[in-house]
Amino acid sequence: APAKAPICAACHGADGIGTTADYPNLAGQKEAYLVKALEAYRAKQRSGGLAMVMQAQAASLTNEEIAELAAYFAAM
Amino acid sequence: APAKAPICAACHGADGIGTTADYPNLAGQKEAYLVKALEAYRAKQRSGGLAMVMQAQAASLTNEEIAELAAYFAAM
Repeated sequence: APAKAPICAACHGADGIGTTADYPNLAGQKEAYLVKALEAYRAKQRSGGLAMVMQAQAASLTNEEIAELAAYFAAM
Repeated sequence: APAKAPICAACHGADGIGTTADYPNLAGQKEAYLVKALEAYRAKQRSGGLAMVMQAQAASLTNEEIAELAAYFAAM
């Protein structure tokens, strides 16, 4: 698993299923979409509500880490 | 099905599975998350890339329609 996957899993589940009703499932999601979503959070193109949490998380991700995390959860 | 579900289905699939790699799956996604995502697009809190498409679609949705569509795709 990617090194930062456990951070994602805290909310999105080790199995990619969100741990609460507010946290979206990542398991089986389209890999290209997960990349775009993380890039959008990193670029602060998503705001409001819990987007603040994801902006902060994505800010520390490299392009390579985004690619690895997207592939990891898409494959679940 | 909600009246506007076929519009969603054009990209996200009649079965809630995105019709291309760039369109996220909606099937089985958390209902509360789908509501929040549509509200965020409607409020133009998501931008960049294909968010422009969703801003335009969500602009015409009432709160009731958002609730119905979220429930519909979450239940798939």
